[in-house]
Amino acid sequence: MDERVREHAEVLVDWSARIEAGDDVVVSVAEDAHDLGVAVAEALGERGANVTTLYGSDELSRAYLKGSEARADDGTAPVFDADPVVDRAVFEAADAYLRLGGGRNTTATADVSREARRAYAKARKGVREARMDTDWVSTVHPTRSLAQQAGMAHEEYQKFVYDAVLRDWEALAEEMAQMKSLLDDGEEVRIVTERDDAPDTDVTMSIAGRTAVNSAASVAYDSHNLPSGEVFTAPYDTEGEAFFDVPMTIDATRVRNVRLVFEGGEVVDFDAETGEAALESVLDTDPGARRLGELGIGMNRGIDRFTDSILFDEKMGDTVHLAVGRAYDACLPDRESGNDSAVHVDMISDVSENSKMEVDGEVVQRNGRFRWEDGFES
Amino acid sequence: MDERVREHAEVLVDWSARIEAGDDVVVSVAEDAHDLGVAVAEALGERGANVTTLYGSDELSRAYLKGSEARADDGTAPVFDADPVVDRAVFEAADAYLRLGGGRNTTATADVSREARRAYAKARKGVREARMDTDWVSTVHPTRSLAQQAGMAHEEYQKFVYDAVLRDWEALAEEMAQMKSLLDDGEEVRIVTERDDAPDTDVTMSIAGRTAVNSAASVAYDSHNLPSGEVFTAPYDTEGEAFFDVPMTIDATRVRNVRLVFEGGEVVDFDAETGEAALESVLDTDPGARRLGELGIGMNRGIDRFTDSILFDEKMGDTVHLAVGRAYDACLPDRESGNDSAVHVDMISDVSENSKMEVDGEVVQRNGRFRWEDGFES
Repeated sequence: MDERVREHAEVLVDWSARIEAGDDVVVSVAEDAHDLGVAVAEALGERGANVTTLYGSDELSRAYLKGSEARADDGTAPVFDADPVVDRAVFEAADAYLRLGGGRNTTATADVSREARRAYAKARKGVREARMDTDWVSTVHPTRSLAQQAGMAHEEYQKFVYDAVLRDWEALAEEMAQMKSLLDDGEEVRIVTERDDAPDTDVTMSIAGRTAVNSAASVAYDSHNLPSGEVFTAPYDTEGEAFFDVPMTIDATRVRNVRLVFEGGEVVDFDAETGEAALESVLDTDPGARRLGELGIGMNRGIDRFTDSILFDEKMGDTVHLAVGRAYDACLPDRESGNDSAVHVDMISDVSENSKMEVDGEVVQRNGRFRWEDGFES
Repeated sequence: MDERVREHAEVLVDWSARIEAGDDVVVSVAEDAHDLGVAVAEALGERGANVTTLYGSDELSRAYLKGSEARADDGTAPVFDADPVVDRAVFEAADAYLRLGGGRNTTATADVSREARRAYAKARKGVREARMDTDWVSTVHPTRSLAQQAGMAHEEYQKFVYDAVLRDWEALAEEMAQMKSLLDDGEEVRIVTERDDAPDTDVTMSIAGRTAVNSAASVAYDSHNLPSGEVFTAPYDTEGEAFFDVPMTIDATRVRNVRLVFEGGEVVDFDAETGEAALESVLDTDPGARRLGELGIGMNRGIDRFTDSILFDEKMGDTVHLAVGRAYDACLPDRESGNDSAVHVDMISDVSENSKMEVDGEVVQRNGRFRWEDGFES
């Protein structure tokens, strides 16, 4: 076995999920994530944990949903049991949940109707909540399908994934703590980009009273992705215009070069060079879908290119992202709720050139450099 | 997809497991049983059942057990949690459990120590019992690894499996009911074979008060294997000698040409042409391991050769088998316990030639023909 697979498993089990002897761990293995599953199973045996392994197959999910569509053969949306007791029991009994993504085809469920997806997602709200109550971590094995989505050769993509995952997370967590501290103490963030080849960004938002998450790829930091490497908070009262030049995929539609105009915290105008209808559908989901749920600052310099995967793209160094929709509870004062929405869609800007981010009027990042780094120009 | 895979799934879901809308079904998919998993998931969606999918990977099991061995690095057997709460919760909540076997390597766990296997099996007694309390059915997808174990080409093995599985089960159940009725009404069975090239068999056993199972590959018949096609009961007070010419594998050891001598219901002498030590180890497990737990009559004529897999071999037409060890509760009067043992090892005889089986002195099968069949000679 590639030694990097073993190292990936160890980072996941020890740094990310903090597994200890006696923990009840549920592992979901996607179709082509078998090798990572083997390495994780061995690590969990060494730690003395109990393991239950789920098969996270998109092709089986598609087959089940297509079967359900056929059952509801009058054209109505299929009806799903609102209390799937086995799945709920699994996550209610589990201490931790490790999701090993990496199927055989990233578009394996493309022909499932939107109605069936929505009905299924709605019926599984309780399962999802029970799962989020565990120490959950999501990662991916570098499969050929993900390499293809990234437009990369398989070996090239493997190197890309391990460069992002096999980091000195403790050191990165310490560096990110500086950004968290700036955001926790600050009241207003302003982001400005001025490029000849793209619309300008000049957007301000309030972060007063909000707590930033130092997302260091570990449940000990309220961080549930491996890789991670971002600091994020939950902004509000957004004003101004923002342009997002990093391509993304919304509901299987490619969306490029999005521009959002905010007034009084809401998106009042928008356009996109491609995929504008998909963007519009997101923004029209509910009132919260027109307000921001997240400001994130990518700080993982192991990620050096965009690969059409939000797990990696939003963590890339020299990027910032804003998400419309739901805010994370971890950013809010206890018992307070932030922006609520059924969606959470991240949009990313490259800030490596002609850009700055200010906190309370002070420049903290310029052209990708942070103020504690060599080469930073205030 | 091969249409036979879809038919296999339908037999499993409808005939074997009797799945109905709202049932909570757990499906375990082995490494190379993906295609059957897809067909089963679609059928379950069509029936309106809930599905939880486990990954039944021998390679992950091996990795976990090897990790556990490494943890117990002082050479003692690894210690496992006696109450793995997630797995127990899964089977306690499930109505049905469908095991789709078919890994990548039938000897994938060969290097796991016997101590680790036993400690793990012991810790999982509660999980196993909860699983047996569901409507469980075990089947296999015809993988290359199973074809190899059978000494067959892959396409040849696929045909073999589907010939055994895709039968008119209702008709076979009716035929087998005649054998069940003979055994239920009978008090003593005698089996005789006289062949020039092998030791004779002449063995008698009591079946008075026992109930035969019409194992027609359906939970509706107390039958949990697909394929099945045998009638079995729980004999006792065995006397005489029996010879088993069908090769088998016990604890990864090939065992051939076993001879057992019974007195007063117990094995008092035995030998085997190869693998005698493995046989001896079985017989010395506990006192019940020297008594019979099962007499089975293979009646599935879709199975036309031995493939070193008990799922198929013991159901083959023109064979009978005796098992030392544990008896099945279904054969016993309510609340009565039959032969008890930690083992249950089936041994098979070809009865297609020079053989007869008598119930209470009357010949019911000669040279493989049953008394209700054309060509039967009493």
